[in-house]
Amino acid sequence: MANDVLHYFELGMNTHQEAVVYMHKDCTVCRAEGFSASARVLVSGNGHSAIATLNIVENSLLPPGSIGLSTSARAKLAAKPGDTLTVSHAPVVASLRFVRKKIHGHALAENELEAIMTDISAHRYRDVEIAAFLSICADNRLDLDEMIGLTRAMVVCGTKLLWPGSERIFDKHCIGGVPGNRTTPLVVAIASAAGLIIPKTSSRAITSPAGTADTMETLFNVDFDVATMQKIMQATGACLVWGGAASLSPADDLMVRVERELDLDGTGQLVASVLSKKIAAGSHHVLIDIPVGPTAKVRSATEADYLAGVFSQVATACQIQVRCLITDGSQPIGAGIGPVQEAHDLLAVLKCEAQAPHDLREKSLMLAANLIDMARGCGLEKAVTEARHLLNSGAAWTQFQRIATAQGGMKALPEAAFTSHHHAPHGGRLASIDNRKLSRLAKLAGAPVDKCAGLRLHTKAGDHVDAGQALFTLYSSSRGEHDYALTYYRDNMDVFTILQNT
Amino acid sequence: MANDVLHYFELGMNTHQEAVVYMHKDCTVCRAEGFSASARVLVSGNGHSAIATLNIVENSLLPPGSIGLSTSARAKLAAKPGDTLTVSHAPVVASLRFVRKKIHGHALAENELEAIMTDISAHRYRDVEIAAFLSICADNRLDLDEMIGLTRAMVVCGTKLLWPGSERIFDKHCIGGVPGNRTTPLVVAIASAAGLIIPKTSSRAITSPAGTADTMETLFNVDFDVATMQKIMQATGACLVWGGAASLSPADDLMVRVERELDLDGTGQLVASVLSKKIAAGSHHVLIDIPVGPTAKVRSATEADYLAGVFSQVATACQIQVRCLITDGSQPIGAGIGPVQEAHDLLAVLKCEAQAPHDLREKSLMLAANLIDMARGCGLEKAVTEARHLLNSGAAWTQFQRIATAQGGMKALPEAAFTSHHHAPHGGRLASIDNRKLSRLAKLAGAPVDKCAGLRLHTKAGDHVDAGQALFTLYSSSRGEHDYALTYYRDNMDVFTILQNT
Repeated sequence: MANDVLHYFELGMNTHQEAVVYMHKDCTVCRAEGFSASARVLVSGNGHSAIATLNIVENSLLPPGSIGLSTSARAKLAAKPGDTLTVSHAPVVASLRFVRKKIHGHALAENELEAIMTDISAHRYRDVEIAAFLSICADNRLDLDEMIGLTRAMVVCGTKLLWPGSERIFDKHCIGGVPGNRTTPLVVAIASAAGLIIPKTSSRAITSPAGTADTMETLFNVDFDVATMQKIMQATGACLVWGGAASLSPADDLMVRVERELDLDGTGQLVASVLSKKIAAGSHHVLIDIPVGPTAKVRSATEADYLAGVFSQVATACQIQVRCLITDGSQPIGAGIGPVQEAHDLLAVLKCEAQAPHDLREKSLMLAANLIDMARGCGLEKAVTEARHLLNSGAAWTQFQRIATAQGGMKALPEAAFTSHHHAPHGGRLASIDNRKLSRLAKLAGAPVDKCAGLRLHTKAGDHVDAGQALFTLYSSSRGEHDYALTYYRDNMDVFTILQNT
Repeated sequence: MANDVLHYFELGMNTHQEAVVYMHKDCTVCRAEGFSASARVLVSGNGHSAIATLNIVENSLLPPGSIGLSTSARAKLAAKPGDTLTVSHAPVVASLRFVRKKIHGHALAENELEAIMTDISAHRYRDVEIAAFLSICADNRLDLDEMIGLTRAMVVCGTKLLWPGSERIFDKHCIGGVPGNRTTPLVVAIASAAGLIIPKTSSRAITSPAGTADTMETLFNVDFDVATMQKIMQATGACLVWGGAASLSPADDLMVRVERELDLDGTGQLVASVLSKKIAAGSHHVLIDIPVGPTAKVRSATEADYLAGVFSQVATACQIQVRCLITDGSQPIGAGIGPVQEAHDLLAVLKCEAQAPHDLREKSLMLAANLIDMARGCGLEKAVTEARHLLNSGAAWTQFQRIATAQGGMKALPEAAFTSHHHAPHGGRLASIDNRKLSRLAKLAGAPVDKCAGLRLHTKAGDHVDAGQALFTLYSSSRGEHDYALTYYRDNMDVFTILQNT
């Protein structure tokens, strides 16, 4: 009686990552097994199995003898309507005792962290258990050995990419927190034009108005399997693809969502998350951009230096080379925020257009130069000169177009249906722009799901503005989202701080 | 556009305590607001509102323009089919910054703990957020001031019971972990026969085979509102009711479930949980039973003494008197485990029947004597004599029957449909009985939902048993659950350790 058979019925419930199974309260299996709401059960069928949380259906939504699955559980079981599924009590998840060990103040060994990552990546943890692990590891509660162990454990659970024929693989990463700041495609174009091998896998936005993958997707296809990525690399020496399909660090993918829900950011978790994905992507030399500013992710130079030190130590233990650059995160980089607006900035920089954002161009050149210096050891001055030449000569733009062609060809950028212009209420010096509030504004307008949504800045912090001068333009595809963003802006006019002349 | 109207449609989804709202993926509100699966939303209607987690329905289960609710959210909103509900983005839960403050290693002030408890009791936290708070407070991470603050904060958020006309209110509590051990009704009968005022509110089982409320419910009604409880108290000086209806510590009720899911037990959380409910119940003098044993909740005398010290200090700060008794938790107390079987033991002790379990009787007398001594200061010897006299003379049984009558009258105990007897595989000394495994066995048989389910021990640890001698009888109401428990027993025969004579 530990198992019994039910037939799959499509309820179409999207509960995001948490696997849920739906059974009727009068279901004989449910009663015989003594299941109650929120119980953890093991569902098996089609040669797959998944641990899921039980939700009890108390009316006739589910026909007798049937069972429903959330979309995430359905995907895991590859279930189709009518399929036969069996349900039993979920086995004890053994690695949870290591989570409790950590809660009880003991450091975890690498094999214990690996057991936790393996169970998380196999979807054996429920969200509350992931939350317990993340909370107890947050705020520097992981020591250096644990951070190294966690990084390696995350790599072990995922797919490792191989780049046959390429001995030295380069990569870059930004720890985020600054709107716009879409340097990655420019750095990839310039550095790969210089001959560096850069198989760039990027993420989609989780809490920001756009991830690199969201922005690139407006220009060309970014969703490829590993075999196709390898073909693109062989053709161009670089790619700009979405990393999610490669399942580089599945445990991290599941943890990141809970971490963001809790608004937590532990150094250990951050370092392990970044480095594990780079190692899994096959990179040996990684440039890490750490923007610092009062409304950025990292608030002070001290914090940034500490983080850079941890990145270096963990990377060394994992036998990869990292270089950290501490950059200006006091305000957005570039003028566009949101996928399509950022794509316009990228093209303007690559085509050396006069209106291209100066800050985005200069930052990208500096990052590319550092990668070139990591590759050649030629000194940063020479590397900067080379990077600038590659951009100004059109070589980077040509290389970008080669990548675009290899990834299926350039697309035309769509236009937003709803646009509104916003002006300075009074004159003075634009003292600051709040990164967090500006990001929220772009997200309320619909970014990144709505690719056209976002905004375009017409001034930068430090500029003098006159009363009535344009501050920014807001873009949305729906009236509702446009209004919603405007309501937020009216309540948060301090996103722009304009100091009146005295 | 921050709000929009939908009509309530009954989906009948029981997700336990976590409030869930169901919206169709093509729903205009969903799209206009930019909601995605797992978003937190504020649902309002009928003059109520609730924060809930969004699940997206991807097929035609929900008619256009309608919205579904989990049973917990429906109860909170008092929603009926067709009711008009509005949905908007959930407001920021301000107290979450105190959870993060604690994660970042800072002690919390009483007002900060009160803000957290207020938001939890108003269902503003999702389970992952409760999990984060519990994890970071577990394992003695709350200092004494925080434990005092947490206790007071839990009291503030709940209902406080008043017992007009009674100046000194007595109470008892067992921290649990020992199967059977149903001393509470006996202690209440004896001590209230001695004239002590004991308004006893008890819980239902969460992870054990029976809570006191589950057991008492087999004998008489335990579900009363506060006004009726006051009437019962005026009539008899005592009651034996379920505390859940009184909402004494709603934050604790919500936290306990997540704590058990995570299998966590922090001292601070335990002490605050117990004392807040006693204070809210209007008690001034509380006896706390701390059973110690290798398979009990508290494993060592050192741990028990530490816990007793914390109870005393927090109680003193909260201006109530506690006395802790450290008792034998090495094996079950009494012979019956599960609601009906425990009720049989209670009646046998009260009626002074020869087969009444000696250990249950003696432990209950000792606990009652301590309460009498707390009330009179007469010395424990005199108090024990008085307690024994009250039991032997039938005064306690008479008082128990008065309480039963005030609570609606005694019911006949039901009988289990499926029974099986289990015997010693070989002779020897029964060295130990595993509390945890025995509890699990009773739960798999169906306890406490199935009141008849459970087991009856025929021997105790320390006894000599012959090969084939009866060890226990197993009871269930369904064949499936009976088989499921037997499968577990076959895999865990070491629940009884019988040492063969050498």
